[in-house]
Amino acid sequence: MLELRLVQGSLLKKVLEAIKDLVNDANFDCSATGFSLQAMDSSHVALVALLLRSEGFEHYRCDRNISMGMNLNNMSKMLRCAGNDDIITIKADDGSDTVTFMFESPTQDKIADFEMKLMDIDSEHLGIPEAEYHAIVRMPSAEFARICKDLASIGDTVVISVTKEGVKFSTRGDIGTANIVCRQNTTVDKPEEATIIEMNEPVSLTFALRYMNSFTKATSLSNTVTISLSSELPVVVEYKIAEMGYIRFYLAPKIEEDDDETKPQA
Amino acid sequence: MLELRLVQGSLLKKVLEAIKDLVNDANFDCSATGFSLQAMDSSHVALVALLLRSEGFEHYRCDRNISMGMNLNNMSKMLRCAGNDDIITIKADDGSDTVTFMFESPTQDKIADFEMKLMDIDSEHLGIPEAEYHAIVRMPSAEFARICKDLASIGDTVVISVTKEGVKFSTRGDIGTANIVCRQNTTVDKPEEATIIEMNEPVSLTFALRYMNSFTKATSLSNTVTISLSSELPVVVEYKIAEMGYIRFYLAPKIEEDDDETKPQA
Amino acid sequence: MLELRLVQGSLLKKVLEAIKDLVNDANFDCSATGFSLQAMDSSHVALVALLLRSEGFEHYRCDRNISMGMNLNNMSKMLRCAGNDDIITIKADDGSDTVTFMFESPTQDKIADFEMKLMDIDSEHLGIPEAEYHAIVRMPSAEFARICKDLASIGDTVVISVTKEGVKFSTRGDIGTANIVCRQNTTVDKPEEATIIEMNEPVSLTFALRYMNSFTKATSLSNTVTISLSSELPVVVEYKIAEMGYIRFYLAPKIEEDDDETKPQA
Repeated sequence: MLELRLVQGSLLKKVLEAIKDLVNDANFDCSATGFSLQAMDSSHVALVALLLRSEGFEHYRCDRNISMGMNLNNMSKMLRCAGNDDIITIKADDGSDTVTFMFESPTQDKIADFEMKLMDIDSEHLGIPEAEYHAIVRMPSAEFARICKDLASIGDTVVISVTKEGVKFSTRGDIGTANIVCRQNTTVDKPEEATIIEMNEPVSLTFALRYMNSFTKATSLSNTVTISLSSELPVVVEYKIAEMGYIRFYLAPKIEEDDDETKPQA
Repeated sequence: MLELRLVQGSLLKKVLEAIKDLVNDANFDCSATGFSLQAMDSSHVALVALLLRSEGFEHYRCDRNISMGMNLNNMSKMLRCAGNDDIITIKADDGSDTVTFMFESPTQDKIADFEMKLMDIDSEHLGIPEAEYHAIVRMPSAEFARICKDLASIGDTVVISVTKEGVKFSTRGDIGTANIVCRQNTTVDKPEEATIIEMNEPVSLTFALRYMNSFTKATSLSNTVTISLSSELPVVVEYKIAEMGYIRFYLAPKIEEDDDETKPQA
Repeated sequence: MLELRLVQGSLLKKVLEAIKDLVNDANFDCSATGFSLQAMDSSHVALVALLLRSEGFEHYRCDRNISMGMNLNNMSKMLRCAGNDDIITIKADDGSDTVTFMFESPTQDKIADFEMKLMDIDSEHLGIPEAEYHAIVRMPSAEFARICKDLASIGDTVVISVTKEGVKFSTRGDIGTANIVCRQNTTVDKPEEATIIEMNEPVSLTFALRYMNSFTKATSLSNTVTISLSSELPVVVEYKIAEMGYIRFYLAPKIEEDDDETKPQA
């Protein structure tokens, strides 16, 4: 039997909004450690990994490891019916082919049960080794989201270049070019407004803006985002989920064969 | 001659927004008692009844009973041109085939006259007898609107079941099932947040969510909604209009012949 | 070389939003006096004239008169990437076929360069002589915008009639007629809420609402709008840009040959 009670139910609502456009169907894996998900996006280009640790739940009962296949769009439809202050409990009986989401209003005057059919989904869990990155940028998540959105109005790809002084986001399109530089800045009033760069060596990598913009749907989960870059590895765009875990997006860099690569397609 | 001056003109704006999608053309009936309307929706399934009592108007002159046929969509277009703080006066000369809406800004610096052609509309006034209901639920109107909207994302019909403990709203669709229970609750800080159930006998009735969601467009008219249920009668969904009257929606329950009835159509 | 630094960069953003739907491509003329534009709308009916005086810029360097042809839609795409509190600098090297917009965040932590190709645009600069008008109406810009929007829901043209008592905006359409009168009113708490009429002789002129509504996109630039009317001249709808200049729209009146003129076309 599975029963996971999450007092800050809005977290789960935000998680679903963050990933439902990227991934159609996915297995949620539940173990003593926590509630997690790993899935490729529907075009098999990006990978999303979610972890909500068991300690973050008010009540966490998971008698045996279980993998529950869900259609994320349907799951999102149900979670949208939860109020932002509701407590959400995820329940499943052993051997059942359904999952139940229970929403309790803070005053306990309104209680909702939404039951959804589970799906059989083939998936293999990729081991993602801890790696060394050439550069790690931590910056305000809203700033990163704004930059990705702005650049997408000009071009299709973004070149992210890191030096000690700062991180540069560049694009090029039919109407012109754009370069946005965010300087390292640790002397801010609020720590979440800092831009902090840890650099072992300079790095400059190109990514599809479409995916970056999709990742930024997780912005509401965290005030900061961490971007880990290495020329041999997919970039990791990570949003920490306070006291519970994280959502991480992985995306392979584009190999720029020639100049045309960065131009929008006709 | 007809001249009805309504200081809180926004009420009339809200009334039109509440009914214009349900009813295309309707007769407004004006008598010494008040300004009223009774009309079937365009598919002849639901009935709406509106009353604005003469006492609620700052000035109310209606020399003889008159029935004015109006296209509600056009009337709504005109009323949308009134400011939310404007005083609205409805004027018609005897024998005229037009009605004039006059909007005065609170400072009297801006005065608008909108004149609209009247229509000849056949309609018979149904007598709606006072009836005994099995159960009457009074609850916050925003809560009811939220529930109808949420359930419509899952299914097409709602089963409303009343017991002494509370009222349950249920639906079923392709992606799963949903049950929302609102408990009787009279110990709230503000009376308009109470959920109060008067029950003579338990009742469980099925309705089309499409209509329920249409009725909830009246939510801005009142903080509370009253739902009167009886197995032999159409449900009445009533929004009181402060110190003036009410808007009531009537809808016959669906007879559930088999399980397929509650499933969405392919 | 050209380098114009505008501390209140949001002004330039608003200017572009005000004119980009009216004009596709236009030459910005830069001289020692200021940064200006004069262009016909794409259907050659309305004229827009913009002036931002050099004194309004924090830094203004313009070595020689230069005319820069820009696609306003592309320019608007770039300016939308500037934050509302950003300082905007317009830069162009002598003989270059590009212009650069630089956006600096108030904290100087984020600096963006957007480079856009210039275009060759044929245009002749019309001399617009200072003229005597029959009537000049100054009123709150939001009020004027609201009136144009409201009337457009009823008809296609507006008749603007000025008498000493006030200004009347009228329209007529399939669903009826509308008249909105704004009274002269100089005794208001805030000067920008006044409606002030200077009249030499009464005037009544007809204009296409489509253009008027387009002009009102400049509403955010100024709390007041000035409408100058004369039966022999195009109307001038002017929005002052605080301490910098103005944006003026010119539109020829419609000649009403018969009653049908004011009715919407089938």
